[in-house]
Amino acid sequence: MQRVDFSSTKITGGFWKEWQDTVKNVTVNAVYDRFCDTGRFEAFKFDKNGVRPHIFWDSDVAKWVEGAAYIISQNSAPHLEKIIDELVLLIEKNQDENGYFNIYHTVIEPENRFKKRDNHELYCAGHFIEAAIAYHNATGKSKLLELMLKYVDHIENRFVKLKDTVFSTPGHEEIELALFKLYEHTGEQKHLDLAKFFVDTRGHRIEDDTDYWSDTVYNQSHKPVREQLTAHGHAVRAVYLYCAMADYAKVCNDEALLNACKSLFDDITTKKMYVTGGIGSSYLGEAFTVDYDLPNQVSYTETCAAIGLILFANRMLLLEPNRKYADVIERALYNGMLSGISIDGKGFFYTNPLEIIPYMRTRNECVKQNYEWLPITQRVEVFDCSCCPPNIVRFFPSVGNLLYTVDSSTLYVHQFMQSESQITQNGQELSIKQETSYPYDGKVKITVSGGSTRLAVRIPSWSDAKYEVNENGYACFDISDGESIELDFEMKPFFVEANPSVVHNCSKYAVQNGPIVYCTESVDNGANIRDIRLDSSAEFEVCFDGALNTQVLKIDAYRRKSSNELYYKLGNDLVKFKATLIPYYAFANRGESEMLVWQTIK
Amino acid sequence: MQRVDFSSTKITGGFWKEWQDTVKNVTVNAVYDRFCDTGRFEAFKFDKNGVRPHIFWDSDVAKWVEGAAYIISQNSAPHLEKIIDELVLLIEKNQDENGYFNIYHTVIEPENRFKKRDNHELYCAGHFIEAAIAYHNATGKSKLLELMLKYVDHIENRFVKLKDTVFSTPGHEEIELALFKLYEHTGEQKHLDLAKFFVDTRGHRIEDDTDYWSDTVYNQSHKPVREQLTAHGHAVRAVYLYCAMADYAKVCNDEALLNACKSLFDDITTKKMYVTGGIGSSYLGEAFTVDYDLPNQVSYTETCAAIGLILFANRMLLLEPNRKYADVIERALYNGMLSGISIDGKGFFYTNPLEIIPYMRTRNECVKQNYEWLPITQRVEVFDCSCCPPNIVRFFPSVGNLLYTVDSSTLYVHQFMQSESQITQNGQELSIKQETSYPYDGKVKITVSGGSTRLAVRIPSWSDAKYEVNENGYACFDISDGESIELDFEMKPFFVEANPSVVHNCSKYAVQNGPIVYCTESVDNGANIRDIRLDSSAEFEVCFDGALNTQVLKIDAYRRKSSNELYYKLGNDLVKFKATLIPYYAFANRGESEMLVWQTIK
Repeated sequence: MQRVDFSSTKITGGFWKEWQDTVKNVTVNAVYDRFCDTGRFEAFKFDKNGVRPHIFWDSDVAKWVEGAAYIISQNSAPHLEKIIDELVLLIEKNQDENGYFNIYHTVIEPENRFKKRDNHELYCAGHFIEAAIAYHNATGKSKLLELMLKYVDHIENRFVKLKDTVFSTPGHEEIELALFKLYEHTGEQKHLDLAKFFVDTRGHRIEDDTDYWSDTVYNQSHKPVREQLTAHGHAVRAVYLYCAMADYAKVCNDEALLNACKSLFDDITTKKMYVTGGIGSSYLGEAFTVDYDLPNQVSYTETCAAIGLILFANRMLLLEPNRKYADVIERALYNGMLSGISIDGKGFFYTNPLEIIPYMRTRNECVKQNYEWLPITQRVEVFDCSCCPPNIVRFFPSVGNLLYTVDSSTLYVHQFMQSESQITQNGQELSIKQETSYPYDGKVKITVSGGSTRLAVRIPSWSDAKYEVNENGYACFDISDGESIELDFEMKPFFVEANPSVVHNCSKYAVQNGPIVYCTESVDNGANIRDIRLDSSAEFEVCFDGALNTQVLKIDAYRRKSSNELYYKLGNDLVKFKATLIPYYAFANRGESEMLVWQTIK
Repeated sequence: MQRVDFSSTKITGGFWKEWQDTVKNVTVNAVYDRFCDTGRFEAFKFDKNGVRPHIFWDSDVAKWVEGAAYIISQNSAPHLEKIIDELVLLIEKNQDENGYFNIYHTVIEPENRFKKRDNHELYCAGHFIEAAIAYHNATGKSKLLELMLKYVDHIENRFVKLKDTVFSTPGHEEIELALFKLYEHTGEQKHLDLAKFFVDTRGHRIEDDTDYWSDTVYNQSHKPVREQLTAHGHAVRAVYLYCAMADYAKVCNDEALLNACKSLFDDITTKKMYVTGGIGSSYLGEAFTVDYDLPNQVSYTETCAAIGLILFANRMLLLEPNRKYADVIERALYNGMLSGISIDGKGFFYTNPLEIIPYMRTRNECVKQNYEWLPITQRVEVFDCSCCPPNIVRFFPSVGNLLYTVDSSTLYVHQFMQSESQITQNGQELSIKQETSYPYDGKVKITVSGGSTRLAVRIPSWSDAKYEVNENGYACFDISDGESIELDFEMKPFFVEANPSVVHNCSKYAVQNGPIVYCTESVDNGANIRDIRLDSSAEFEVCFDGALNTQVLKIDAYRRKSSNELYYKLGNDLVKFKATLIPYYAFANRGESEMLVWQTIK
């Protein structure tokens, strides 16, 4: 099974074209401006008297470069190219002669290079490797790639040959998947070997003593990776590692890693994932906790973790063409990832809670120390730890990565976007065209030209449409040159229950329409949305909301009248009204509001 | 309006006789044994090489002495009298010549007497004043009272005359109400003046800077007491202060204090009280927080706070004969106070949560520092801070304090217990007999002999029985010598809703039968009780449970089948079963179990 790179696909209209335009026209510039404001670009001057760089600033900029490169590859963007070219000159100027490159560990702690495992040096390196590949692909310019290849050689020398570093594997994974990507780009055995080294070495010795986490599970160092069958610790680190494990399994046909990846994926998605596709329920450690622990108000569910889960699931599709991977991609894509960016493209969430009751913050005001951690309720333009915004910048232009995989007999269609792709299969150059209003409508028309093939189309697990599917959940169609198939997944709103073991959601119901999870906000429904009971026997109306630029739902609902009494006998004091539900991803775009995903029904 | 002391009443049978017998036969001895184990009695030897006393140990023992004295007054208990007499000799031996008496500030920090406001010296003094009065009343022995009168003189000298103390009012209120009680006992103006001094002085200057609370509201020192119209800070301290304010209002006919007390009572009971009568929702500061903040799993709701609320409400009945005070007493009495002691009389709760899901603790195991504070799930025999067990020891024998108040025309009947009382009204000696199975049955027969009077009987607010009540919620009956009245409050189980502003309980329902709030436990209903939906259209069956020695309820209910899927479409997978509800006060008597007060209905 081969992946189909986003560079083969043009998103031609509809939902994702609008989002790509927003990121291209607004987000990439807005993130650049904020990164300039905060000194992240200035830091590449390595000025000891300048603003103090944070250990992960290199990676923030690297992800931005990667995203900008993807935009450059799809559009003329000379202003972005100029920024990157100037940056590359600074990198060249300030890189060590031996190849080492890291701002913080040159300007602030040069004496501690490769001595502090959690200081993100290899994480930053990994993101710059990805950026360099992207910029090389986008422009053909090779300078940044050359600089990073020199750094990779230095890393190999220190970690593999000299072994003079304090730790042997990074505290925050990322370089592993970057090195597999580099190997794909260069074809050089040494890059594959180094990628394998970091994966294989992990968990074979105690590397450090994290200060608040109970043990090395925090950074997935508690066991050799092939023995890691359940997901633990920092969620972003975890899924980045699992991406590399899946790459490894694919490249080297490693059965033990394949089994570990399957087990990890199932563990996450059947026990540790929010209905939004968000993962990592705990703010402490930004981490997975225990099975079915999915609290809604304090869900951490970092945007980067949702992106990482998509990256992991997309790699799994190369190992096993099972609908469950594409279903999870879809769930995270339209919900827990997309909620990370505001409708106007300028605001971001790092954490993506499933419930916001601003009232709950008021109790914290009683004491100097807080009662409990609560996520922010409003999107902001930049964070101190601003990993998520540039992750979004690189994710949207490359969303075409999610559409297809192909093997010698079959072209798998995993996601549905208005698009045109060029795909090579058995030497024939196929053109694939998708016409669809997805996710607003369940109809998809797929046209193939340039040859005949077998199409395997994912039937989304939410669809009740009566398609005959294979054991992996795909409907197969033999299609000739120039032919089209038309599908209709019969999209209509429905209520979702969580597993009874999710105690947080017992007797609560989420609303979904196609892949999109909906929520209520008090800005539409008035205060105290927890007291709303949706009429589960009523019909949903589907409407378009111009301000939010998306579909919303309306349904009959009930709420109680206000009362002066604290406790009273159950009565029939319900008031009927029409409740509005908006896509979860669109929450917090109209000022601070209560928000609720898991509803009560009547 | 005059109070009717418990010494005028004999509980002759039924619910409260059983509980008084348990406390007399088990609890008073069990608490004594645990206090011996922990060195609390040994500490009265003032041995610098002995176990290190805590600042509040004097008060723990004082409350036990008070309770033991009440038991002595009702029963022959020479073993208790012997313990107290020996203790009094130690007190006499170790009291300072100047009258000062405090173990911690003699053995550990003698240099800091009356210098640390939060060190509970005056709190301990207050409890020993109450103990001394009780022991004097019970036995006629005056030595302990004399020792404490000497201490009171010393306190007056230091705080009022010399003013050489670092603080002017105590960090933990208690001495104020004790001094009003002492004034009632001695009739001496100086005791009234000192009581008034501590109440009047409070809140007129910044006394200290508490370290974690945001300001002096923690110990009700943020305003002069007459300006305190809403309840804040440490819940036990608050209600002890409000007791003294009510005493003051009564003794001195102080209108401003009366208004403050009314306002404070209404604020607590319409915005800050659990359905169990528990108060103080926050473990941080053991305190009130903001209006309607009544979380169930992390409710602090200290046993002592429920007792304190009863003491406050009972004083309010002397100021205003309104049913709301007696209703709140009843609510706390049968629920949030009674839950503080185990069925066998040996185990205690300091905190009384309204929900226990042991699963929630498992997430704390992921990290070295806890995610969140959670109350203990099992009663224990003694706490480091063991204020609640001896508070229970003194509360049960004196529960007769809650039955009646009397003025020249009317005898008010506030609570219903199988009992016989002797009450003086207008010079006539009335005998009042209550025959009732309350709280298991709503029928009460009241017989008066020795004269005729007007009976005003509280019709509980939960009762739908059609009695004509006055504006204060009392049904009035003119009754002649030897006559009886029979009432039936038509007790039957019902569902309770909380005010919609209590976001924690939206779409949740408590079950009450008469005054008793019920809960579900997994020991009866199987795991995951949050997923149970009670059939609100079904009939409750009322049964007697021999093991718990109380009434329980059964009702049709539904729960979901287990599932392997994390999310699925709303289906009809409910399984019908018969759910069991037990009185809230009886929870956690059969090992660790899930427990839930606020239920879901179908």
